[in-house]
Amino acid sequence: MPFQTHRLPNGLQIIAETSPSARSMALGFFVRTGSRDEGPEVSGVSHFLEHMVFKGTPRRSALDVNRDFDRIGAHYNAFTSEENTVFYAAILPEYMAQAVDVLADILRPSLRTDDFDMEKKVIIEEIGMYEDQPMWSAYDHAKRIYFGQHKLGNSILGTPESITALSRDQMHSYFQRRYVAPNIIVAAAGNFDWPRFVELVEKHCGQWQKGETGRNGVCETQGSGRFEVMTKEKVMQEHVFLISPGPAADSPLRYAADLLGMAIGDDSGSRLYWALVDPGLADSADSSFHEYEGAGAFYTSFSCQPEQAEEDLEIVMEVLHDVQKNGIREEELNQARSKVLSRVVRGSERPKGRLMALGMNWIYQHGYRSMDDELRAFESVTLSDIHQVLDRYPLDRVTALALGPLAKLSAAK
Amino acid sequence: MPFQTHRLPNGLQIIAETSPSARSMALGFFVRTGSRDEGPEVSGVSHFLEHMVFKGTPRRSALDVNRDFDRIGAHYNAFTSEENTVFYAAILPEYMAQAVDVLADILRPSLRTDDFDMEKKVIIEEIGMYEDQPMWSAYDHAKRIYFGQHKLGNSILGTPESITALSRDQMHSYFQRRYVAPNIIVAAAGNFDWPRFVELVEKHCGQWQKGETGRNGVCETQGSGRFEVMTKEKVMQEHVFLISPGPAADSPLRYAADLLGMAIGDDSGSRLYWALVDPGLADSADSSFHEYEGAGAFYTSFSCQPEQAEEDLEIVMEVLHDVQKNGIREEELNQARSKVLSRVVRGSERPKGRLMALGMNWIYQHGYRSMDDELRAFESVTLSDIHQVLDRYPLDRVTALALGPLAKLSAAK
Repeated sequence: MPFQTHRLPNGLQIIAETSPSARSMALGFFVRTGSRDEGPEVSGVSHFLEHMVFKGTPRRSALDVNRDFDRIGAHYNAFTSEENTVFYAAILPEYMAQAVDVLADILRPSLRTDDFDMEKKVIIEEIGMYEDQPMWSAYDHAKRIYFGQHKLGNSILGTPESITALSRDQMHSYFQRRYVAPNIIVAAAGNFDWPRFVELVEKHCGQWQKGETGRNGVCETQGSGRFEVMTKEKVMQEHVFLISPGPAADSPLRYAADLLGMAIGDDSGSRLYWALVDPGLADSADSSFHEYEGAGAFYTSFSCQPEQAEEDLEIVMEVLHDVQKNGIREEELNQARSKVLSRVVRGSERPKGRLMALGMNWIYQHGYRSMDDELRAFESVTLSDIHQVLDRYPLDRVTALALGPLAKLSAAK
Repeated sequence: MPFQTHRLPNGLQIIAETSPSARSMALGFFVRTGSRDEGPEVSGVSHFLEHMVFKGTPRRSALDVNRDFDRIGAHYNAFTSEENTVFYAAILPEYMAQAVDVLADILRPSLRTDDFDMEKKVIIEEIGMYEDQPMWSAYDHAKRIYFGQHKLGNSILGTPESITALSRDQMHSYFQRRYVAPNIIVAAAGNFDWPRFVELVEKHCGQWQKGETGRNGVCETQGSGRFEVMTKEKVMQEHVFLISPGPAADSPLRYAADLLGMAIGDDSGSRLYWALVDPGLADSADSSFHEYEGAGAFYTSFSCQPEQAEEDLEIVMEVLHDVQKNGIREEELNQARSKVLSRVVRGSERPKGRLMALGMNWIYQHGYRSMDDELRAFESVTLSDIHQVLDRYPLDRVTALALGPLAKLSAAK
C-alpha cells in the first residue's frame, strides 16, 4: 500500500494510499473546522455550510452538482463533527477526473442568498427530526452538560433560534476564514493513478486562498460532574447518557482507551452487555471511547423501560466503579483486542474505510499510518496501559443526563 | 472469483466464492424461513427464535456462545425478514474452524424454558423500541394494510400479545419443521480454503435432520388500495408510507424495477429528491423496490412537518402519476444505472457484501451469479423494460398509511 504526499504552494495537503487490487476508489476533502470553532452567535454554521456547499458555485447550479455526481454513479456525502467537515465520494476509477472537478468546485460555493434562505428550512426540519430521536437528543444534551464552557460542548446542529438568526454574510465570513487551503487536506485511497490525481487537484485547487489554520480553546476537561433529568412525556423509554474523561486523540494512551471502552461497553460480550442487555434489563447499553483534539471522553448510555431506570443506573455505576478500582482482566483485554483487530482489517477492505483512516490519522496523528501500523499499536497494549488510562482519567467521575418520561432519578452514587 | 458448491447427503447446500486478495472472510447460515411462514398463533416466532439461537446449546451456555465469538474477534450478527433468518460472521481467515464450530452449534439451540421466558422480555422491549421509531412503525402498518390476508403482511416482530402468549413448545415445533437441513444454505466468501470449509461444515452439520422445504401462500398481490391515518399525538413529524405493486424476486423485470425505484426515489438526484427534499418541503423522501418470493413492491415514503403533509402527498402522487403515464427519461435511466453499478462494485469489495449476494442469489435466482453477471444485467436494461414494469405493475395504484399528529389527511387523488 504505497503512501504518497504532496503539498501545494498555497498550503493544501494532498495524501493518498494506492491499492491495485481494489475495483473502486474513494476521495475526500477534509476541512479542519466544526462546531467547536463557532462562537454562540453562529452556532450551527459549520453544519449549515456543509449543506450550502452542495447548493452550487459560479460554474454549477445545485441541480448541476447533483447531476454531475449522479452521472458518474458517485456515492457521495458529507458530515460535520465538532472538529471536521468532510466531503467525500466513492467512485469507479474511470471517473476520477470528473469527481475531482465537482468536489473541488463545490468547495468554493456561491452561498447565494435565496439558496441560503431556502436551506434554512431544511436545517430547521433536520433539527426537528433529530429531536424526535431520544437517544440522539440525550447525547447532545449530555455533551453540553459535560463540556460546559469548553467549546466541544457546542451543538453541531445549532438551535432553530441560532439558525433563524444566522445571516448569509456571517456564513460567508466564517467560510473565508476556515476554508483556506492550509486548513484542508485532500485524500484518496483505492485503485488510481497518483501523478494524475495530483495534477487534477493542482489544476482545481492551486489558486485557493492561503490563510490561518488551527483553533482556540484546545484543552483537557474532566467534565462538570452534574446530573440532570430532562422530562419528556412523549418519549416511551428512559434514555440515560453518562460521560467520563478520557485521553485526547494524539495521546499514546488512545489505543488502550479504545480497548477499555470496548471491554466495558461493546454491543456484545462486554461488561454492560452481560449486566444489562443479556438479562433483558435494558434494550441497549453501550460504552465507547471518543477522541478529540486536546480532549477525549468515554460515552456510556442505556435505554430501558422507565420503571427499570433506577436499578439500571445503579448497575452501570457499579460496573464503572469496579473497573476503576480493579481494572479489567487479561481475558477481557484479549477479547477486546481480537474485536478491534478484526474491525481494523474489515474497515480497511473498502477504499472508503482507508480514506477515512488516512485523513483522520493525518489530522490527529500528524502523519501516515498503514493498516499494519494500527494493528501493531493495538497488539502492543498491556494491562498496565489500561491502568494508566484509569489512573489519569477516572471512569467513575461521570456527568450524566436522563431523558424520558421520568420526572426524577436518583443521582449516581 | 471461483465459485464452488457441494450438497451434503442430508440436503444441506454449501456454496462459496473465494477471493485470494481479501484479508478476511465472511460465512453465514441462510435459513429459508421468516414471518410469512408463521400462523397468527405464533406471530413473531421466527424473530424470537433468531434471538434464542444465541442462548445456548447442549455444548455451550449463552455466555460461551458470546465468548467463543468474541475470542476470535468475530463481527457476528443475525437478522430475520419476511422470508429468511440469516446468521453470519466476518472473521480473520485463521479463525475459520472456530467460526464454523460456533455457528453450526448454535443453529441447534437448546431452547431452554428459563432462557425462553427471560428472552421474552427482551423481545417485548425491542417491540417497544421500534414503536418509538415512527417511520419504522409506519412501514410495518403500511405493509399490513397493503398485503391484507397475504402472508407477506405478517409482522416480523409480532405484538406484545402474540409474544406473551407464545410457548416454548410452539417455538420448538416451528424450529423442528423449518430448521431442517434442506431448508438451509451455508455460504462463505473471501480468502479461505474451500476443501477445508466443506470438511468443517460436513463435520458439524452432516447429522442434521432432513425434512420438507418450501412455503405456502406464494402468490402475487396488487395491494388493498386502502388509505389509513394513524393519529399519534406524541410524534412530531407526519410520516407517510405508500406501497405499489412490483415484480417478484425471480422475475426478469427485477433489474428494471430496481433502476426505476432508484430514478424515482433515491436519496439524491431522484424525482422525489428534487420535488420534496431539495426545496425543503420534507426532511426525507424515498422510493425503492423490494422483492420477495412470488411478489414485489415499491415502497415510497416521506416525513415532514404536519402542516406540510397534505401538499407533499399531492406532490408525491403527481410524481407517481407522471412516471406511470410518461415513464422516465433515458438520462434518468442512465443516472440510476451508474449509481447501481457503483453500488454493486462497492458492495462487493467486502467479503460480507459478497456473502449476502451469494446467499440471496442462490435463494432467489436459483443459482450462482458473479459480480460481473449482476453488472451486465443492469447494463442491459432499456426504457422498454421500464415500460414493461409500469404496464404490468401500476405505480400509482397505491396503498397508503399516514402516521403522526394529524387526525386526517385527504386520500390521494
